Amino acid sequence: MMKNIPRLMVDSSDRNSDLRYACAFRTTSDAVVFLQHRQQVWLVVPLMEREHAVAALRSSGGRVLAPADLGLCALDRRRVSAWAYGLLRATGIKEVAVAPDFPVATADLLRRRRIRVHVVSGPLFPEREIKNRRELLCCMASQRAAVTALRVAAALIRDTAIDTRGRLLHEGTVLTSENVRDRIEHVLFAHQCTGADTIVSCGADSALPHHRGSGPLWAGRPIVIDIFPQHRQHGYHGDLTRTLVRGPMPARLRRMMTAVCSARQAALAQIRAGVSAARVHHAAVQTFSRLGMTTDLHAEPPSGFIHSTGHGVGLDVHEAPTLGSGRNRLRAGQVITVEPGWYEPGFGGVRIEDTVTVTRAGYQLLARCAVRL
Amino acid sequence: MMKNIPRLMVDSSDRNSDLRYACAFRTTSDAVVFLQHRQQVWLVVPLMEREHAVAALRSSGGRVLAPADLGLCALDRRRVSAWAYGLLRATGIKEVAVAPDFPVATADLLRRRRIRVHVVSGPLFPEREIKNRRELLCCMASQRAAVTALRVAAALIRDTAIDTRGRLLHEGTVLTSENVRDRIEHVLFAHQCTGADTIVSCGADSALPHHRGSGPLWAGRPIVIDIFPQHRQHGYHGDLTRTLVRGPMPARLRRMMTAVCSARQAALAQIRAGVSAARVHHAAVQTFSRLGMTTDLHAEPPSGFIHSTGHGVGLDVHEAPTLGSGRNRLRAGQVITVEPGWYEPGFGGVRIEDTVTVTRAGYQLLARCAVRL
Repeated sequence: MMKNIPRLMVDSSDRNSDLRYACAFRTTSDAVVFLQHRQQVWLVVPLMEREHAVAALRSSGGRVLAPADLGLCALDRRRVSAWAYGLLRATGIKEVAVAPDFPVATADLLRRRRIRVHVVSGPLFPEREIKNRRELLCCMASQRAAVTALRVAAALIRDTAIDTRGRLLHEGTVLTSENVRDRIEHVLFAHQCTGADTIVSCGADSALPHHRGSGPLWAGRPIVIDIFPQHRQHGYHGDLTRTLVRGPMPARLRRMMTAVCSARQAALAQIRAGVSAARVHHAAVQTFSRLGMTTDLHAEPPSGFIHSTGHGVGLDVHEAPTLGSGRNRLRAGQVITVEPGWYEPGFGGVRIEDTVTVTRAGYQLLARCAVRL
Repeated sequence: MMKNIPRLMVDSSDRNSDLRYACAFRTTSDAVVFLQHRQQVWLVVPLMEREHAVAALRSSGGRVLAPADLGLCALDRRRVSAWAYGLLRATGIKEVAVAPDFPVATADLLRRRRIRVHVVSGPLFPEREIKNRRELLCCMASQRAAVTALRVAAALIRDTAIDTRGRLLHEGTVLTSENVRDRIEHVLFAHQCTGADTIVSCGADSALPHHRGSGPLWAGRPIVIDIFPQHRQHGYHGDLTRTLVRGPMPARLRRMMTAVCSARQAALAQIRAGVSAARVHHAAVQTFSRLGMTTDLHAEPPSGFIHSTGHGVGLDVHEAPTLGSGRNRLRAGQVITVEPGWYEPGFGGVRIEDTVTVTRAGYQLLARCAVRL
């Protein structure tokens, strides 16, 4: 029902992936105004950016304005909120749809000046969920970079001795999370990607799914490596996790590994267009419960399978859809992660994650990753 | 007068530098709730992040909550806006100050539930303008990375032949903006920095201050190199621009270069704590007008000295203060750029930029950069 309401954004494209998606012009870190009504796009940019924006929007027929084109007073020419109002006045548009994170200062100003501002409850650009061929290739490139980086990390971990305390030694020095993360970042960089927040967590740290990890890596404990590169040019992400164990694997850990692998298979087996996301998630959840493994979300910290089974991947590393207990259905062309995990506080965690694209018949891995130590 | 109103943020630290500044916990890309009242800080994070956040805030005494701690209904436990309301209810706070870009959806919800939401007109954390010793050292590290990268770029440009059409040839192939940018990015990466949007623009492109540049580099034309690295660990920026010319310099370009150097000296000579930013800006503006050079902001594209003389640098590459015609005064401990430029559409631009810290007696360069071809 919001379909025909013009969409308005006031942001910079490095902060706002909707803007990056909808508009070929990449802003500086300063905010611009974007307005779309049906096929027509308008952009208000600082005077200094106008020529550049005009060139970027030429092929799409978008119209570029500078604040001086909007008949604003001197004060308003310096306020991006006022640019938004000036553009709406110039186009005669009295009603806009904005994202939940639209800036309150602009919304307040527009409402004071009798513009109706509808805050959408979901994404402002739901079409982002379905990737076209180009976008899919972009995600694949980032996913391949992640696979290459993971292989290099695995080779580094494999090529270690184990000291008497159980720490991994690489060329005589203790190998740390930081060392491995650094190596991964170098590989990603060489593949035109950034990956500053890569996770390399070992032992008890790995029981906290988003712990980045620090300090020595240990034999016989899980090493969770979660790599989610963003391509420096096109901005699309990949997302990949493997859990590696150097040296003999304790029975408790082996049981966790086997369970997570089974949950992964069970979830993947459900994926195809039309299936509810909850069905995929429940397939993973039930795998654990069938094995007699109990999740406790209220423990401190929570234990078991404590997150959803996956999420969309694109210009944002976490975007729609969510593969949790919601009622959404999978659609062909979505790019999603499948990442069951099991976390035992104080001991460690296991997570295995792949990124796939949903097809009518099932799914396709964005890249294969058969890494073993 | 806003001083004692609690400050509220709902965002992720990779998008929101205020959050990164005010809170030791680095979020994932998902939003968290931050509340500060006098010395007390509260954070609401997803259950999965709680342990990690508790560890990050331990030394500062900040309190970490998960949605489940706030007595929210199942629906509200999934909405970060409702977390914000739950936290305010739990702390008895009925009035908050938020930044202009605070998410409208959260503001609307809080207002419906009778919380007074004050949108500040300037920065929510004005204290960010004054850098402490640690922050200054961080900016210096990034600035040194920029200087090293600029030296490498200059060496690459110096080490070229000039073909019959005037293009620069490096080891037999045409040297492009992209080649130089790539080299710069590698150097920055090796210095723990990112610099994806580095400008290397030549000739007519350089007349558009934010044009990133593309294609062959030419002899006898300005090559504007603007490097603004962000450190991958601590997040502070440097900002440095030099304009290089390979081969003989045409008289028109020499005149621009000399003028910009004079404007730079004139602006720098004004800098010290207590001086108005406008005085610094006008020193640069007047240098050009005394030389008989006219700025035309209304031309298409605008020509002359078409931007302000500088801006603050920190966790954001553009932050307060602005060195334009505003009434703000410089203060000791600010880190600011001084970057006069002169742009002649169709021909080219010249910009020279250094980053300095304001002192009581004058200023100090963050790093020296005496690059010559």
